[in-house]
Amino acid sequence: MFRNFKMVSNVIFGRGCFTQLDDILKKQRHHSKSWVVFVVDDVFQGKILERRLPFHAKDMLLWVNVKDEPKTSYVDELTLKVHHFARTLPSAIVGIGGGSTMDLAKALSLMLTNPGFSHDYQGWDLIKNPSVYHIAVPTLSGTGAEVSRTTVLTGPEKKLGINSDHTVFDQVVLDPELIRDVPPIQRFYTGMDCYIHCIESLQGTYINEFSRSYGEKALTLCREVFLNHGAKQECKNIAADGDSSGETGDLSERDGRVADTDRIFSNEDDKLMMASFFGGMSIAYSQVGACHALSYGLSYILGTHHGIGCCIAFDALEEFYPEGVKEFREMMRIHKIELPRDVTKGMSKENMDKMILVALGLEPLWENCLGKGWKKIMTKKKMKSLFKMM
Amino acid sequence: MFRNFKMVSNVIFGRGCFTQLDDILKKQRHHSKSWVVFVVDDVFQGKILERRLPFHAKDMLLWVNVKDEPKTSYVDELTLKVHHFARTLPSAIVGIGGGSTMDLAKALSLMLTNPGFSHDYQGWDLIKNPSVYHIAVPTLSGTGAEVSRTTVLTGPEKKLGINSDHTVFDQVVLDPELIRDVPPIQRFYTGMDCYIHCIESLQGTYINEFSRSYGEKALTLCREVFLNHGAKQECKNIAADGDSSGETGDLSERDGRVADTDRIFSNEDDKLMMASFFGGMSIAYSQVGACHALSYGLSYILGTHHGIGCCIAFDALEEFYPEGVKEFREMMRIHKIELPRDVTKGMSKENMDKMILVALGLEPLWENCLGKGWKKIMTKKKMKSLFKMM
Repeated sequence: MFRNFKMVSNVIFGRGCFTQLDDILKKQRHHSKSWVVFVVDDVFQGKILERRLPFHAKDMLLWVNVKDEPKTSYVDELTLKVHHFARTLPSAIVGIGGGSTMDLAKALSLMLTNPGFSHDYQGWDLIKNPSVYHIAVPTLSGTGAEVSRTTVLTGPEKKLGINSDHTVFDQVVLDPELIRDVPPIQRFYTGMDCYIHCIESLQGTYINEFSRSYGEKALTLCREVFLNHGAKQECKNIAADGDSSGETGDLSERDGRVADTDRIFSNEDDKLMMASFFGGMSIAYSQVGACHALSYGLSYILGTHHGIGCCIAFDALEEFYPEGVKEFREMMRIHKIELPRDVTKGMSKENMDKMILVALGLEPLWENCLGKGWKKIMTKKKMKSLFKMM
Repeated sequence: MFRNFKMVSNVIFGRGCFTQLDDILKKQRHHSKSWVVFVVDDVFQGKILERRLPFHAKDMLLWVNVKDEPKTSYVDELTLKVHHFARTLPSAIVGIGGGSTMDLAKALSLMLTNPGFSHDYQGWDLIKNPSVYHIAVPTLSGTGAEVSRTTVLTGPEKKLGINSDHTVFDQVVLDPELIRDVPPIQRFYTGMDCYIHCIESLQGTYINEFSRSYGEKALTLCREVFLNHGAKQECKNIAADGDSSGETGDLSERDGRVADTDRIFSNEDDKLMMASFFGGMSIAYSQVGACHALSYGLSYILGTHHGIGCCIAFDALEEFYPEGVKEFREMMRIHKIELPRDVTKGMSKENMDKMILVALGLEPLWENCLGKGWKKIMTKKKMKSLFKMM
């Protein structure tokens, strides 16, 4: 049996296409009482993006805090808030932010139409009812959350996604201008999430040509972005010299067409956004591997954010991904990244054991990485030694 | 304004996944009277594929002949046949074949729910009502018809697609085993359709990073398939030596996962199928160019099939696509392809004029190829000299 992969229904890509969000939502506002929930990362409070939201009188603005990775309890709290806001269901949920915000928007759209608590649905295909129509507007690229069929949540017992076809976004708005001002360190860690899951997927045992085609191209794009230090700045300089309207996306024309001059802006932001999209698509018939499994352990016990957690874990996995780790270290060197060290130092035995349990629980990831006999290779002792290296 | 690109809702990819078609259709058979129309290329009459169709008692089997390219009159004839077959609408249309058959299935699914004649809808976004749910099962790869939002038809006045979001398939079944036995010449010409539209799209003025990512990977895959003569045979030999169950797709396992040994089968058929899919996706924010425009002229007047028409036209376009044409000729050399020559020799003035008119009418293709000033470059005289070279 092959998975029948559910794709995002509509994708819009282009510099400045965020301005078309109002038109897109218009089609969901079927009557005068229709309303929309904007789920927005609270780092944008008071920023330009807040003023650009296509907010209508009856809409709800839900600022979310993603300093910690999304918890099931937080999803339940948000769901309750939306239920209290109005007596009808919203016509659309719009998630604007990085992977965590997009995951919250997905989870909210599912929990508004499915009874009980979100932790009841952590797992595979447990969702019964279709979700509320939901849109992703990534402001950070790398996680692939914009195309994946999961929403990763930390529950009372585990960090595990709500995996279902209903989780998939109905619409994705890919505007590379929105990721322009991401702080370089965050950009690096989130980009590495994409780089690492491509390495894991391409080197895994589950891969087929569908996932390989997406994964290889995502990897190429990551290399163009992260091994090519300085290119972004050069592009910006050309833009500034050439045409001042360039950076506001005014060059766009009808029907997805872009003017000749727009070519100079086809820079790293565009590539990184496509890398994230392709990286997410490559998981369709594949799986992540050892690094993601270990990073889930780190996140669960230490609350480490996903991107940085992946980097910390990957740096300890030279034995399993020798070429990938070598290239990753070169990227760190170019971008002057100093990884946190000794993050598991002084950890209690209980926490270490729990961390190992969480990581070992992700069986498909280990099988993808090491094949069917993975349990003989990835023993508790072996895993402990890996965690000790981090 | 950027195009809001409608994607195929579901994709299943894998060797042998055709056997899952019955399960997929089950979800559309909502009640005991539900029925399905199988639109199948008549080259499969009496072949194994006919016996493998998941045909239920109330279903309709519609053999279609695509020796000539699809005409609007043929679509209208098929639509009438389906209306006469039962008093209700079918629950699904399944198109099984190459680009022409898939286009007929798309057009049929649209015309069952939209009044009038199919030639009324040749153009952009003229379709008003949602189509019948429709599935593509390609048995030939290269056209990208499995993901495009058009169905190319020859009408009384023009060769032009019915372009609409409703045209897009709801489901695509990508089983590389189904293209294994395509005759080499047909495989080449159809594959070149993909290669050529990637060259046209990547070298065009409309391109953006979304289309570039898809187009570049499609091009890479085409090169792996067509510049690598002999690889397919090698793979088949390994398969025959290794595990006899290999070629029947029995190696597939649960959930899209494939066994380690399946890797050796990740051969040219898989790559070609993905090249076609990616090539089709690359058109999202791009357009084909001079070659497709000229080939439409050839098809309209001479009835030349699309793939071979593209090859004949491309070979005359060294001036516009120097590197692409050079590589294309190398592919022809490797695959021992002899192009038909002098196809426009002795053509009447009327036909030549009409052919030029049809080709010049495809304005977006010329603008993509030559920029806004294209009319100054591609004069009637210039075009005539190009047609004379073919």
